[in-house]
Amino acid sequence: MSIALIIPDRKLDDLQQRLQQALPDTRIEIWPELDDPADVEFAVVWKQPHGCLSGLINLKAIQCFGAGVDSILTDPTLPDLPVSRIVDPALTEAMVGYLDGIVSYYRLQLDVFTRQQQQSLWRPKSPRKLTSITVLGLGELGGAVANHFDKAGYQVAGWARSGKSLANIRCFAGEEQLQHAVAAADVIICLLPLTPATEQRLNQAFFQALKPGAIFINVARGAIVDDSALLTALQDGPLAAACLDVFCQEPLPKDSPFWQHPAVLITPHVSAVTNVSTVVAQIVENYQRALRGSGLLNPVDTIRGY
Amino acid sequence: MSIALIIPDRKLDDLQQRLQQALPDTRIEIWPELDDPADVEFAVVWKQPHGCLSGLINLKAIQCFGAGVDSILTDPTLPDLPVSRIVDPALTEAMVGYLDGIVSYYRLQLDVFTRQQQQSLWRPKSPRKLTSITVLGLGELGGAVANHFDKAGYQVAGWARSGKSLANIRCFAGEEQLQHAVAAADVIICLLPLTPATEQRLNQAFFQALKPGAIFINVARGAIVDDSALLTALQDGPLAAACLDVFCQEPLPKDSPFWQHPAVLITPHVSAVTNVSTVVAQIVENYQRALRGSGLLNPVDTIRGY
Ligand SMILES: NC(=O)c1ccc[n+]([C@@H]2O[C@H](COP(=O)([O-])OP(=O)(O)OC[C@H]3O[C@@H](n4cnc5c(N)ncnc54)[C@H](OP(=O)(O)O)[C@@H]3O)[C@@H](O)[C@H]2O)c1
Ligand SMILES: NC(=O)c1ccc[n+]([C@@H]2O[C@H](COP(=O)([O-])OP(=O)(O)OC[C@H]3O[C@@H](n4cnc5c(N)ncnc54)[C@H](OP(=O)(O)O)[C@@H]3O)[C@@H](O)[C@H]2O)c1
Repeated sequence: MSIALIIPDRKLDDLQQRLQQALPDTRIEIWPELDDPADVEFAVVWKQPHGCLSGLINLKAIQCFGAGVDSILTDPTLPDLPVSRIVDPALTEAMVGYLDGIVSYYRLQLDVFTRQQQQSLWRPKSPRKLTSITVLGLGELGGAVANHFDKAGYQVAGWARSGKSLANIRCFAGEEQLQHAVAAADVIICLLPLTPATEQRLNQAFFQALKPGAIFINVARGAIVDDSALLTALQDGPLAAACLDVFCQEPLPKDSPFWQHPAVLITPHVSAVTNVSTVVAQIVENYQRALRGSGLLNPVDTIRGY
Repeated sequence: MSIALIIPDRKLDDLQQRLQQALPDTRIEIWPELDDPADVEFAVVWKQPHGCLSGLINLKAIQCFGAGVDSILTDPTLPDLPVSRIVDPALTEAMVGYLDGIVSYYRLQLDVFTRQQQQSLWRPKSPRKLTSITVLGLGELGGAVANHFDKAGYQVAGWARSGKSLANIRCFAGEEQLQHAVAAADVIICLLPLTPATEQRLNQAFFQALKPGAIFINVARGAIVDDSALLTALQDGPLAAACLDVFCQEPLPKDSPFWQHPAVLITPHVSAVTNVSTVVAQIVENYQRALRGSGLLNPVDTIRGY
């Protein structure tokens, strides 16, 4: 009986050791080096090559190694099994800290001053008046982010699929309310999951509904955004700037127009990275639940897609 | 009887109007257009051309239009009169907000990611582990900054001329304790006034005592720092980066090596700019105190230099 770690292109020694320590009687194997695929009962997965799960005939559950399950669910050969994902206060804290820093970056005009510095240009400017923030997605991360900026003194709105009631946050829900949710925002933060309903959802009509001078931050998934609509909104308005942590293709290809765009800040998918030490406990718990057939922690609705 | 505004190179309509509204019976004049220099009883001053105050024979007091009085006190023809400066919660809040954003910028490696973006380079990195901050100068601004970073969870140390006791802040005092104050710091923030005692005080010995990888932020005055010692510390260690808001000469000359230095972030003296609307009341109060000969608010010790 074993747990398979199916997380290509990452050093897994630390995760393997910690799981082994917590589960001394279970083999922890690193895919594709599996002793016998029929032994695998539980898989910890991140961006698996499609097809690799279907051969694990005794698999009982799939644990996503991150918060977003889109890369798992798009595998057409995905076995019909319970899927869970990471929900972790340390991950949430990292995301809040990242967004707090990025909003300060724009408030202090560091984008403008960095460009001016490249031209040895001394032009003082007052801080940007950023007073209103809209968060798209009010789940584990979006909800915490909305609360953080409310406490920091911003007017905060949010948008989700279902209606929410969060103290001090103007909550909007469903397709027809998206444009209302963002109309007044100086900063728009995308924290939606990538699903069939959100793919390419932030399109030309969306960007054209934003306030002139607005700043767009995407920390969710690249494919939620129509890149050419985003580029148009940066070129011709209304957007003043965009900070992008996620992209349709990662690493971002060398020839992407985003790289050298003067109004784009790129970070290489670092906003909130799963922290091995803080998530081992929930993975172990889910493994034990899978073995005894009880419901997983942080389950994913595989039909809805998140 | 009049108040003279001696603040070259700045639009003064707003300040003039607000003072006029508060003091309808007093003439508010903009230097060098003075009706009769002998009428001037009070001067609001910022970077005055040396010599221009000595002709105001009925001047009773000098109000600095900012927090730092160095440019006033270095005038060799300065009349022997009471000098006051701005102390304003809005100014303090601006400084705290600036430094909070700059520390986040470095924590999130935005300096590194900006450089990588220029080369279309995708190289994820974890946030910098910045845990300890030392603030040089524990006055109105430095004290508030130290308290802010303490509340934000950093280990904070501070250095001043006299001994202080601030909750949770390790306070160091006097010349011989400077190196102890900074030895453990990941981030060093300079908030000293420029005085004969601090001019060029942050010299080679100072920078060489810092921790490898430390980050230096100067929001006080450029002349407190020995620029060539700073450049050496950036080139050969121990400094990883510097954020400079202030310079010996401003605007920073086009040929300064700081402009194109890859480890330097330049902002054009914007960290905390005097806000006309929030400081008018204390200027009016000081004018009235000067007329009746009572002590000024926020007085400056002109011997000590701050
Ligand atoms: N860049 C990074 O490093 C990084 C790190 C972690 C996560 N992420 C991304 O962040 C995403 C969000 O994470 P999370 O943990 O907050 O997810 P979550 O808890 O599942 O929350 C998702 C939120 O999006 C809303 N939503 C889903 N579909 C929608 C639709 N069609 N229209 C409107 N709202 C919709 C949901 O509405 P309801 O509440 O009504 O269901 C919910 O509020 C993840 O899916 C992942 O892609 C990125
Ligand atoms: N970049 C900007 O936009 C901007 C804006 C505002 C201010 N500033 C600068 O910030 C400086 C600080 O402002 P502030 O209002 O906080 O000044 P402050 O209230 O006068 O405080 C000065 C602090 O520095 C300490 N100090 C003075 N001389 C020292 C010495 N020789 N050795 C060690 N410590 C010494 C003082 O020690 P004691 O407490 O023992 O006296 C005090 O703690 C101003 O002078 C100005 O130059 C810059």
